[in-house]
Amino acid sequence: MRTTIIGLGLIGGSIAIDLRKAGVASMLCGVDANQANANEALRLNLVDRIGHLEGMLVDTDVVILAIPVNVLTRLLPRVLDLISDKTIVIDAGSTKGSICKAVQSHSRRNQFVAAHPIAGTENSGPSAAFSGLFEGKTNIICEGNKSSEQAMNKAMQVFDALGMNTIFMEADEHDKHVAYVSHLSHVSAFLLGHTVLDIEKDEKNIAMLAGSGFASTVRLAKSSPDMWAPIFEQNMEYLSQALQEYIIHLQRFQYHLLKRDSVQLHKTMTEANNIRRILEGIETKSTTVKPKNTITA
Amino acid sequence: MRTTIIGLGLIGGSIAIDLRKAGVASMLCGVDANQANANEALRLNLVDRIGHLEGMLVDTDVVILAIPVNVLTRLLPRVLDLISDKTIVIDAGSTKGSICKAVQSHSRRNQFVAAHPIAGTENSGPSAAFSGLFEGKTNIICEGNKSSEQAMNKAMQVFDALGMNTIFMEADEHDKHVAYVSHLSHVSAFLLGHTVLDIEKDEKNIAMLAGSGFASTVRLAKSSPDMWAPIFEQNMEYLSQALQEYIIHLQRFQYHLLKRDSVQLHKTMTEANNIRRILEGIETKSTTVKPKNTITA
Repeated sequence: MRTTIIGLGLIGGSIAIDLRKAGVASMLCGVDANQANANEALRLNLVDRIGHLEGMLVDTDVVILAIPVNVLTRLLPRVLDLISDKTIVIDAGSTKGSICKAVQSHSRRNQFVAAHPIAGTENSGPSAAFSGLFEGKTNIICEGNKSSEQAMNKAMQVFDALGMNTIFMEADEHDKHVAYVSHLSHVSAFLLGHTVLDIEKDEKNIAMLAGSGFASTVRLAKSSPDMWAPIFEQNMEYLSQALQEYIIHLQRFQYHLLKRDSVQLHKTMTEANNIRRILEGIETKSTTVKPKNTITA
Repeated sequence: MRTTIIGLGLIGGSIAIDLRKAGVASMLCGVDANQANANEALRLNLVDRIGHLEGMLVDTDVVILAIPVNVLTRLLPRVLDLISDKTIVIDAGSTKGSICKAVQSHSRRNQFVAAHPIAGTENSGPSAAFSGLFEGKTNIICEGNKSSEQAMNKAMQVFDALGMNTIFMEADEHDKHVAYVSHLSHVSAFLLGHTVLDIEKDEKNIAMLAGSGFASTVRLAKSSPDMWAPIFEQNMEYLSQALQEYIIHLQRFQYHLLKRDSVQLHKTMTEANNIRRILEGIETKSTTVKPKNTITA
């Protein structure tokens, strides 16, 4: 399949590497608003050609958008305007409600598959891309009933080639669950980093006193604001609910702390320990045998 | 040196392994209130002998206490009561104010060195112990001027053998800085885990939607409540200040989020990105050449 990737960063670049490796992409075309990124992606052989949007959409089979979600909602309708009948479009955005809404009445809505391949690192740009990023991870497709069978089949070819386990969900359900499980942990890390930098004026103290535990907890604070600020804004309602819940939990813990209520502190921490069971599942996720994907919705 | 380790978990066990490896400990005796832990430590060859406190203190050169800080403040004065003139005692507690206070008027105060070797993982128990845990990490000694030269020299032999970089600090300063840099990140992770478990009643959703980012942020929620609840209580004043700062930062972010104030959200996240520079330092900490330790205070 002739494949065009719009956005040649960590996600777009890693998709390119593995689609080529799997032999799914016969020709890889790339588009990036940042010319330096586009050039680097070409130099790293992530794609075969780079160029402007219009030129790169001619005669292509699959278009994959891997760009910040605020740009996505603006660019997606325009991409659908420009493609031919045989082309299908997939997005990789971390929000799904706003994106689906942006094309809900588009005449080519059925050529679009709304997806969220859940994978990433705290790094960004073409040089952050690597093979295997998506292997064994979960991919979510939303509003699958609005995509044509042809579009769905081609999209599944892509996600199967990446080694992903695809599941189906309502866009609104998606946004609610990822607010808690993904977006909240990013906010928690960004603000932990911000608080510590704010208070510990002497950065030497942080470097000297911090162990691997602090490094792990704050790691996501290295993530790209260009990518994450728009995600937080588009998922504002569910994220602010999740954040409010987190703040209430922290305040309750602080209350028990101020009262030196050992029993309650211990109880809360013991309950939190249950996360161990779930984390073991995540850590083994990428090493388990990939189940056969079937379209179930 | 004949060495007695009280508390045969991750910290005590890892100290035992590396003191033996370095040839510093000629005979390793172990004490653990939990008989199953003591037996396992013996089976794993972490120590040569196990026994009751009184017996294990006879004729020993160095006693190392690696037990929860609430037990430490109770047991430390008793250990000082029981030892002979030639024995020195080191603790490895994560708080220093309460521990120093517990023995401030003890007649053998100068045989004690108050230390905090900053290292650990989210795992606990003798089987979690491993060689190299302390290599290249920071060790903090507090109230060094209250320890005799003989005690300090023996303690430095221990921390040098572990490969640690020792620095000196006031106990109160120590407690203030670790509240922000270590204890707050533990609270942040425990409560993130608790919040997500509370809201996402179906644990399958968490396992399916969580990526490596969530796993990293919440990792410390697996830590032992027996160890951490007493640390939080002993450092209540500084930790509740740190926690209040964190809550205020989260609330301010939520305010900008509710207003969809892109500029402020972006600004906060860009400032938090500065943590990258510090984390690079931490990640290379254990691979850099160990500077020669010198007692500077």
